[in-house]
Amino acid sequence: MSNERLIFLTNDDSYLSKGFRHAVALASEFGRVIAIAPDRVQSGMSQAITIHSPLFLRQVECNERVEIYAFSGTPVDCAKIAFDHFFAERKVDLVLSGINHGSNAAVNVMYSGTMGAAIEGSFYGVPSIGLSLDDHDADADFAGAVEYGRKIIAQLLDAAERLPRPLCLNVNVPRCAAADIRGIRLSRQTRGFWREDFYARQDPHGRDYFWLTGAFCNAEPEAEDTDEWALANNYVAVVPVQVDMTDYKMLSSLDGVIK
Amino acid sequence: MSNERLIFLTNDDSYLSKGFRHAVALASEFGRVIAIAPDRVQSGMSQAITIHSPLFLRQVECNERVEIYAFSGTPVDCAKIAFDHFFAERKVDLVLSGINHGSNAAVNVMYSGTMGAAIEGSFYGVPSIGLSLDDHDADADFAGAVEYGRKIIAQLLDAAERLPRPLCLNVNVPRCAAADIRGIRLSRQTRGFWREDFYARQDPHGRDYFWLTGAFCNAEPEAEDTDEWALANNYVAVVPVQVDMTDYKMLSSLDGVIK
Repeated sequence: MSNERLIFLTNDDSYLSKGFRHAVALASEFGRVIAIAPDRVQSGMSQAITIHSPLFLRQVECNERVEIYAFSGTPVDCAKIAFDHFFAERKVDLVLSGINHGSNAAVNVMYSGTMGAAIEGSFYGVPSIGLSLDDHDADADFAGAVEYGRKIIAQLLDAAERLPRPLCLNVNVPRCAAADIRGIRLSRQTRGFWREDFYARQDPHGRDYFWLTGAFCNAEPEAEDTDEWALANNYVAVVPVQVDMTDYKMLSSLDGVIK
Repeated sequence: MSNERLIFLTNDDSYLSKGFRHAVALASEFGRVIAIAPDRVQSGMSQAITIHSPLFLRQVECNERVEIYAFSGTPVDCAKIAFDHFFAERKVDLVLSGINHGSNAAVNVMYSGTMGAAIEGSFYGVPSIGLSLDDHDADADFAGAVEYGRKIIAQLLDAAERLPRPLCLNVNVPRCAAADIRGIRLSRQTRGFWREDFYARQDPHGRDYFWLTGAFCNAEPEAEDTDEWALANNYVAVVPVQVDMTDYKMLSSLDGVIK
């Protein structure tokens, strides 16, 4: 039965990343996998789409269980071509984006290409998971992310028919050893923003250049219902994500002010 | 008095676009303008940031009222370097992003580099406006966008001190002649998604390539409180934007399901 499921897989670290290989193995436990992933690192690409350039697609792997394509677009481009060109009328059972090298908790959900693709996938009515490990190391240990990813995928597939759409989960796994993970916590997105330090330098031709580097400032570190709190306390954080960005409270405040 | 205000200006169509030149003129009516804008078109770049490349900055214009810099990063990179490097301790009174060639109503708020920069600016506690005209033409008529942009900026600056933060407005101006605009409507983000058509071709070397092109599917065309309705009926749509993407309804639905 489960072998007949179709799972669309993508990420933002490219099809060459370690996290992606773990995701291929994990997803193929649940069904047939078609993966379209960026052909190069696309971290921090958010919901970006490619409007002004052609996009190149090539198959890099194909066997009974798994087809993998490398695509020259962004993670969202990968999701769009999958659903609007590849799958057309085929029913997809799950979108899995990841496993990302690095947390996408808190406001990172907005900058993340991994989450961009997961969100885009959910627009097609398919249950969607962005799965991230709180460790940027290219050789990070994905054991905990795989174990809890497996558990969450199974629970989501079991319940999918009775859950509303769009349905998108931002899943972040703490960096600790799998055995030290204390469980799963449904959470809300932590309030807080990044503040950057720009390394200013000059190139050999005297031109100013900058490297962006920064730190996340958690505006509510004590709030136990947030994803950052869950991660900091060795829980897997699961935040359901939606895309209505209207600030309804502000709408009331603006009544009579903007007219 | 108003001459002492400091306004940060950016966009996603680059410092060379017609909409940007209109924004420079408009913003300078309200104070001193420092603009850091992409050095090339960055449409559709969403909240993307540049993590793995150095970013180059050069001054392209400087007079008593206006300083303009071209930056090799994304719109969000422009906002980040402005606030975290340039302004440091200086008080900024307004962020203006635009004037965009093309609407950023509905879910376009998520793909838009213009709105990415406006949202990012609001993270620094500064009232922020993304201003867009529903016309992609490079030589579009910006008269209506300038007229209503002026009105909204004035109203926002007047009320800024008593409004909460973050404060970010997604302002979209209809394509009609300025005289035909019927007024301003506070609105919510329209529900709906894009569906793409990929033009599939082969290059001279036989490689498959694709162009992304699509259409927005409005899920609630009759809803008069939405930004798409406002635009379609020749109103300027103003949607306040926030970034908590938690799906709180889904959080309840997932209780006992994901555990």
